[in-house]
Amino acid sequence: AEILGGLVTAMASGRIRVIDLTQTLTPEFPQIALPPEMGQCWPFRIEEVSKYDERGPAWYWNNFSCGEHTGTHFDAPIHWISGRDLPNNSVDTIPVQNFVAPACVIDCSADVQANDDYLLSVADIERYEAAHGRIPKGAWVLMRTDWSKRSDPEAYQNFDETGQHTPGPSTEAVRFLVEQRDVLGFGSEAIGTDAGQGYHLRPPYPCHYYMHGAGRYGLQCLSNLDLLPPAGAVLICPPLKIEKGSGSPLRVLALVGA
Amino acid sequence: AEILGGLVTAMASGRIRVIDLTQTLTPEFPQIALPPEMGQCWPFRIEEVSKYDERGPAWYWNNFSCGEHTGTHFDAPIHWISGRDLPNNSVDTIPVQNFVAPACVIDCSADVQANDDYLLSVADIERYEAAHGRIPKGAWVLMRTDWSKRSDPEAYQNFDETGQHTPGPSTEAVRFLVEQRDVLGFGSEAIGTDAGQGYHLRPPYPCHYYMHGAGRYGLQCLSNLDLLPPAGAVLICPPLKIEKGSGSPLRVLALVGA
Ligand SMILES: Nc1ccccc1C(=O)C(=O)O
Ligand SMILES: Nc1ccccc1C(=O)C(=O)O
Repeated sequence: AEILGGLVTAMASGRIRVIDLTQTLTPEFPQIALPPEMGQCWPFRIEEVSKYDERGPAWYWNNFSCGEHTGTHFDAPIHWISGRDLPNNSVDTIPVQNFVAPACVIDCSADVQANDDYLLSVADIERYEAAHGRIPKGAWVLMRTDWSKRSDPEAYQNFDETGQHTPGPSTEAVRFLVEQRDVLGFGSEAIGTDAGQGYHLRPPYPCHYYMHGAGRYGLQCLSNLDLLPPAGAVLICPPLKIEKGSGSPLRVLALVGA
Repeated sequence: AEILGGLVTAMASGRIRVIDLTQTLTPEFPQIALPPEMGQCWPFRIEEVSKYDERGPAWYWNNFSCGEHTGTHFDAPIHWISGRDLPNNSVDTIPVQNFVAPACVIDCSADVQANDDYLLSVADIERYEAAHGRIPKGAWVLMRTDWSKRSDPEAYQNFDETGQHTPGPSTEAVRFLVEQRDVLGFGSEAIGTDAGQGYHLRPPYPCHYYMHGAGRYGLQCLSNLDLLPPAGAVLICPPLKIEKGSGSPLRVLALVGA
C-alpha cells in the first residue's frame, strides 16, 4: 500500500514518467506478409459508425478489424507449435502479473545501422550485463535497433529479392536468455521478434520456437526504445483478453524514473 | 527508481497483486444495442488464420473484428459531442500517464440488488468519503454493482418493453465528481457508464455528456470490482492506440496491496 501510494505521488510530481512504446494503429501501418499460399494476418481497417450525425446525433465511434498480430502486438506461447500444449498459453489465461514486469534494453542501434540483418549475439548480452548488471529472472529483454524510426512502410518491411531484411536475435542468444537468464520474453522494434531472415536459421524462427516453447512471450513493432534506460524501467503490456487468443494488438507503456 | 524497484520486488513476493478487471472477448459477450435506425457497434467476431496446419505449419493465429466500444472498453472524450473539440480527446493523443491512476470503488451492490435502475447519488459518494477518505483529484471512481456477475447475456442486457434497465450515476453525482472532485473518469460493470434509462435523464446520458465534456474518461463492462479495496488500488487501463479512436476494447488491471 505504501509502494502504491508512493507510485501515485511520484507520477503526479513527475519523478516517475510513463513512456508510450506503441505505434499508432492506422490502415497504413505495415503488416507481416507471409508466402501467399499461407493464411494472412489482416491489416488494420476502420469504419465510421457515426460522427455526431443522423447515425448517432451525440456520439462518434468506429468499428475495426485486424489480426491478433497487427501493429504493436503481444505473442502468447500458443502462437507457436512449440507452445501449443503448455498451460496458460493464450492471452486470456496468462497470469496477469506478467503484464507488469521489469525491462532490460540492449542497444544494437549502431550494429543495425551497419547491417539490416544484424543478429543479437550472446556477446552483446554479456557486454550489456558487464555495463548494466545481470538480467534479472522474469525480465523482458528489448532489442533496441531504432528500426521503429523507419516511418516509410517499404523501409520498415525492407524486402528485396532474397526476402525480408530486419534484425532479430541469434539462436544462441535466444537460448541463453531462456535457459541461462529465465527471461519473461523478448521484444523487438521490427515486424517480428525473429529476424527477417529467421526462417533460414536453425530451427526456423528460433525466437518464436524457443521463447514460446518455454512459455515465454514476445512483443513486436515496439517504438521509442531509445527513450528507455538500459535497466530499471517497468513494462506494462496487457494484451486484449481474447478467448484462446494467440496474441493481440495492445498499448505498451513503460514506467521510468525521471 | 527506488519506487519502481520496490514495486517489482513487492510483486515478486506477492505483497502487491494484479487483479484482472476484464471480461473475456468472445462472440457471445453482449453488445450495446441502440435503436435500429442508428449506426451499430460490431460484436466481437474471430476467424482462424492457421492452426499448425497447411495454412501455417508452425503457428496458430486469428483475425478479428469488433467496435471501439465492444467488451470491456475505454471511452475517450471525442466519443461524445460535448468533448468533440477538446485537445487530446482521442485514444491516440490522451497523455499516457492517465492510463495508470488511483481508483476509488463505491459499493452499490446492495442497492442494485434491490433496484436494477439504481442511480449512484451524491449522498452515496459522501457516505463513501466519510468511511474511506476524500476522493483524490485525478482518481477513477468505479461503481461496484456486481452487475458483471450476470453471466447470462439476457440478464446482463436486461431489456424489457420499457427499454434497458442497468445501473449508473445520477446527473448530480456525475457533476459532483467532475466539478467538486476533479476525477479522471467513471467506471461501470454494466454495458454503459450511463444507466440503461440514462437517455431519459437531463441531459440525456449525463455521464457521457459531463465526463467527456470535461475531458474525462469512461470504462465499461468492468468485472471483479468486488475484489478491490474501496481505496488504494492503482488502475492500469491503456486503450489501443487507434488513430482518432473514440475508445477501444482493452485489458484493465488493478494493482492492490496484499
Ligand atoms: N514470424 C512469423 C511467422 C508466422 C506467423 C507470425 C510471425 C510473426 O512474426 C508474428 O508473430 O507476428
Ligand atoms: N450510451 C451510449 C450511447 C451511444 C453510443 C454509445 C454509448 C455507450 O454506452 C458506449 O460508450 O459504449
